Amino acid sequence: MKKVAIFMGSQSDLESLKDAFKILKNFEIPFDIYILSAHRTPEEVSKVCETAEQNYGVIIAAAGYAAHLAGTIAGKVNIPVIGIPMDNSSFNGLDSLLSTVQMPPGIPVATVTVGKAGATNAAVLAAQILSIAYPEIKEKLIKYRKEMKEKVLKANEEVKNIEI
Amino acid sequence: MKKVAIFMGSQSDLESLKDAFKILKNFEIPFDIYILSAHRTPEEVSKVCETAEQNYGVIIAAAGYAAHLAGTIAGKVNIPVIGIPMDNSSFNGLDSLLSTVQMPPGIPVATVTVGKAGATNAAVLAAQILSIAYPEIKEKLIKYRKEMKEKVLKANEEVKNIEI
Amino acid sequence: MKKVAIFMGSQSDLESLKDAFKILKNFEIPFDIYILSAHRTPEEVSKVCETAEQNYGVIIAAAGYAAHLAGTIAGKVNIPVIGIPMDNSSFNGLDSLLSTVQMPPGIPVATVTVGKAGATNAAVLAAQILSIAYPEIKEKLIKYRKEMKEKVLKANEEVKNIEI
Amino acid sequence: MKKVAIFMGSQSDLESLKDAFKILKNFEIPFDIYILSAHRTPEEVSKVCETAEQNYGVIIAAAGYAAHLAGTIAGKVNIPVIGIPMDNSSFNGLDSLLSTVQMPPGIPVATVTVGKAGATNAAVLAAQILSIAYPEIKEKLIKYRKEMKEKVLKANEEVKNIEI
Amino acid sequence: MKKVAIFMGSQSDLESLKDAFKILKNFEIPFDIYILSAHRTPEEVSKVCETAEQNYGVIIAAAGYAAHLAGTIAGKVNIPVIGIPMDNSSFNGLDSLLSTVQMPPGIPVATVTVGKAGATNAAVLAAQILSIAYPEIKEKLIKYRKEMKEKVLKANEEVKNIEI
Amino acid sequence: MKKVAIFMGSQSDLESLKDAFKILKNFEIPFDIYILSAHRTPEEVSKVCETAEQNYGVIIAAAGYAAHLAGTIAGKVNIPVIGIPMDNSSFNGLDSLLSTVQMPPGIPVATVTVGKAGATNAAVLAAQILSIAYPEIKEKLIKYRKEMKEKVLKANEEVKNIEI
Amino acid sequence: MKKVAIFMGSQSDLESLKDAFKILKNFEIPFDIYILSAHRTPEEVSKVCETAEQNYGVIIAAAGYAAHLAGTIAGKVNIPVIGIPMDNSSFNGLDSLLSTVQMPPGIPVATVTVGKAGATNAAVLAAQILSIAYPEIKEKLIKYRKEMKEKVLKANEEVKNIEI
Amino acid sequence: MKKVAIFMGSQSDLESLKDAFKILKNFEIPFDIYILSAHRTPEEVSKVCETAEQNYGVIIAAAGYAAHLAGTIAGKVNIPVIGIPMDNSSFNGLDSLLSTVQMPPGIPVATVTVGKAGATNAAVLAAQILSIAYPEIKEKLIKYRKEMKEKVLKANEEVKNIEI
Repeated sequence: MKKVAIFMGSQSDLESLKDAFKILKNFEIPFDIYILSAHRTPEEVSKVCETAEQNYGVIIAAAGYAAHLAGTIAGKVNIPVIGIPMDNSSFNGLDSLLSTVQMPPGIPVATVTVGKAGATNAAVLAAQILSIAYPEIKEKLIKYRKEMKEKVLKANEEVKNIEI
Repeated sequence: MKKVAIFMGSQSDLESLKDAFKILKNFEIPFDIYILSAHRTPEEVSKVCETAEQNYGVIIAAAGYAAHLAGTIAGKVNIPVIGIPMDNSSFNGLDSLLSTVQMPPGIPVATVTVGKAGATNAAVLAAQILSIAYPEIKEKLIKYRKEMKEKVLKANEEVKNIEI
Repeated sequence: MKKVAIFMGSQSDLESLKDAFKILKNFEIPFDIYILSAHRTPEEVSKVCETAEQNYGVIIAAAGYAAHLAGTIAGKVNIPVIGIPMDNSSFNGLDSLLSTVQMPPGIPVATVTVGKAGATNAAVLAAQILSIAYPEIKEKLIKYRKEMKEKVLKANEEVKNIEI
Repeated sequence: MKKVAIFMGSQSDLESLKDAFKILKNFEIPFDIYILSAHRTPEEVSKVCETAEQNYGVIIAAAGYAAHLAGTIAGKVNIPVIGIPMDNSSFNGLDSLLSTVQMPPGIPVATVTVGKAGATNAAVLAAQILSIAYPEIKEKLIKYRKEMKEKVLKANEEVKNIEI
Repeated sequence: MKKVAIFMGSQSDLESLKDAFKILKNFEIPFDIYILSAHRTPEEVSKVCETAEQNYGVIIAAAGYAAHLAGTIAGKVNIPVIGIPMDNSSFNGLDSLLSTVQMPPGIPVATVTVGKAGATNAAVLAAQILSIAYPEIKEKLIKYRKEMKEKVLKANEEVKNIEI
Repeated sequence: MKKVAIFMGSQSDLESLKDAFKILKNFEIPFDIYILSAHRTPEEVSKVCETAEQNYGVIIAAAGYAAHLAGTIAGKVNIPVIGIPMDNSSFNGLDSLLSTVQMPPGIPVATVTVGKAGATNAAVLAAQILSIAYPEIKEKLIKYRKEMKEKVLKANEEVKNIEI
Repeated sequence: MKKVAIFMGSQSDLESLKDAFKILKNFEIPFDIYILSAHRTPEEVSKVCETAEQNYGVIIAAAGYAAHLAGTIAGKVNIPVIGIPMDNSSFNGLDSLLSTVQMPPGIPVATVTVGKAGATNAAVLAAQILSIAYPEIKEKLIKYRKEMKEKVLKANEEVKNIEI
Repeated sequence: MKKVAIFMGSQSDLESLKDAFKILKNFEIPFDIYILSAHRTPEEVSKVCETAEQNYGVIIAAAGYAAHLAGTIAGKVNIPVIGIPMDNSSFNGLDSLLSTVQMPPGIPVATVTVGKAGATNAAVLAAQILSIAYPEIKEKLIKYRKEMKEKVLKANEEVKNIEI
């Protein structure tokens, strides 16, 4: 199975991305983690991109501020790139959202929710994308969604007994 | 090959989506077009979603205003859903962008650029996603990118002769 | 008397909605609480909507992020739907406000203030709506407003003695 | 049947509100139109509000800029007030949306979509509200929604034959 | 000397306004404080406005959320009204700023900085306005500005010795 | 009577300010017009400010983009400065609004509506400010307001006959 | 003298940049123009950057949407990079402004005004930067500023004769 | 070597600017620090500007709220002015960003990232600008960038061993 590559622009993003790691691990989708910055280590980003299409099926890139990491990678590879806008600047992620999603025509970045919620969504989206070629992931996606649903339904049961 | 389904919330979005149709046609990726609204025709949206996973590999959904179409579909299928925020309200797409991208954890929408540029990017992203399972698309993606690049390089040549 | 249904997209919204529960209880307006997500439990939302018009006079729906819950319900029932945009994402409720209020023509959501203040306003608005058919609510609304006013006037008296 | 009162802050809003008039007329809901400004004619607004609860079941108020009209009325009557934020200032309705929806706790305004789409939604919401007390409106709402749906489904049929 | 009236929409604004009280006191400008809400106590606001022109030279009004207080007063009196947008909602004062400053043509509100800084600026502006008719205030304004300046210049001296 | 000084940052603002000139002329308030830029002609702005307190009772300053003109003047004079944020940049006046209103504590700018509506409001506010010292302006303000009111009431009469 | 390199992301930016070309030409500062996209032609951008420090003293980069061009170049060269955010997307330059200015610590982009005004400012800033090493530019800057000033002062004279 | 002048509008900005001081010190670029406000001490700002071109090669100016400091200086000197928008108001730096970057054509401010990250970027940009005339700075810039890169690469190594 093709792996997922998860890039983050800074070590400080690591904590926010943990849910992505957990989901991919639970889904038994292999993945590599890179801490590489589009601006501070452009050559290393380029180098990983050179062989990315052989190694990876999907790339996830998380960055804050003027978040160029996902877009830079998307300009270098022909596989789906998922962008997670981080919310660590003064603008709470408006800057990184617009920097990630507003790609010019021809070079898409599949942008997900800003911040920690985006880490979860990036992992699920990566699994959905890979599931087209690797149907074994499908079952895990169905199970994941069922568990989410059951959690909501359980809360829905409990709330009936709430004291007001 | 699994087809792409392109949903739009209103007939008025048709013109803005034409570049998506052209790209998919050029890439020889079969697709179906639906004009269905998450709010005006929820049953029909549900009905298409019931069999979507058999028929389609990727779903593209374009909507404006409080754009729920992509998210509604994403809540009903386990395949990648790409959202195009349309810019037809007073807010020029800020409403549809936030309504599309800010999905709660667990139900991702792969959001692309707001408006007409997003139609192009949705089609290219759909092709990238399908290319994992259908390698014949890969070549077309490479050719597409090459042509984009050549167009830029041609402009770069011509600008050398500009009169100032 | 027709009841009010209060939906919330997530258990984490419960605390912010307590003022709504209290107001409806004080007004002796019966209500049911549902924790159901437009995206995680779309079938259950649909199911409650099927019989909603018989059971309920008004529906209140609170959701954060790309808040689709109120709009989804509004697309399925022909009774007034009040939307409360929650402020639990990085965008402090701008996303949920636009996702709730910017409904396309024909499917309105009666949107109130973002966050905890919106819970109060949703309950009062529901009472005002029901009071057209159930005049006994009218007196309670008048009393509620009178108490609000007296609280302000009391503060206005006290501030005269403030030491500067 | 209790009537609907439609207020607008300026004669220039008249054109944008025509869809509201048409819908109420088609629904056979009687209504009065007022052009009165919260700031230029506060006494006249107060005067209409004094007898509003006897004459009207619902009030619709449309205003642009720092749109206070709906909120001012909501502070004087105990019936549902629907606010339509107009988009005629430099801020395209962001100012009027926030001025209308962000009411402090206790005095709700049922806010709908910004601009012309909001006129339609205000009228439909008013009809939904009145339909609790006047069930004859229910059928018209059902018919209205059916026609909306059929229009979408017709477009959905036609798009199958689109030439790409 | 004509007095200043300081209105606030809620007791919770009192703390943020203390700098305004202090400045007016230091400038020996008499002032009255009112806690009155445009929406919860519209009659009381109207009543104070009826005699406002006799008693007051300038009115200061502070409010948060859909801040209508300054605009409501400006619609009822023909003396300068200064608006302070408070930052106590989810939108950190963007809602109250636009609700205060974007008054329609003909009914101005002299809007100052959002939040606590606005309290200081409202008091200084009120003093500047009154100083046209009451030249004794002029000296105090000059002294106030001189002290501000000296405080900055002192910091400018001290920073020369900073250890880096 | 002390005059009003109207500054604008650029000749292109002249057209938008004509309503201010007309109102002051109708109110028989003498005024001078300056086209001077805070950035291109700082010395000339300073020079006018040196004698401004003797010649002028109020200063109006209109500027677009990073609108510093009103704030610069406010830092040099001790009379009321009214700022009109112009809407001639890509941001439609959000930049000039924030640049004008968000003055640091101690140096207020009395900010009015963005754009052409702000010109009207600046002139009316200047008249209100001057009317404290010059009671003859009061009558004109009352007449102006009465005419505004009558225009609205006339529209309110006419709308009764509207054909729907 | 070291030259200036002007990059733009798309041929469609050419018209908006003409003022930059004119200013540099008038200042007799040699410059090269490149139409190269950070995403469509990343290798060509890299290649120009490799020798940029030898050839160029300053780089100007103009781009719209998720404007990465200036930041990408700034990550590859150690000379000043000036970014011009273009306003050609649905967001009128808010996306490109945040994508350009919000660079992470260590890799600055000297960002100027959004759109056509930014072209002028980028050229003047480039001249100011080069003037430290090449004092002959200083005189031209002084002359340029003098002419700007004179144009404003001429308008200031003419406005004295305006008919109101 | 020409020095750098660092202005800040208020003593409270000092802490956020410390990274700028450290970088310039490490680069052995001499600098002076000024705490001077464009509004509270305009004469002192003007006075420093009078001799600024002789003493300084680059000016850095940090200010919050309606941040006029950088623009004011840029209107008085013909050397590069770098603006740092501080994020100390209710708007988290949106006000200071727009007030700093949106300079009218002809008077540029080289704007960097909002807040503390901007202090770092201003210092690095100043060093890049000066390095054109003073090549000895070039080496330090190369070393600085190398260290940044190594820090990222070290984190990239360590993350390989992360436990998930």
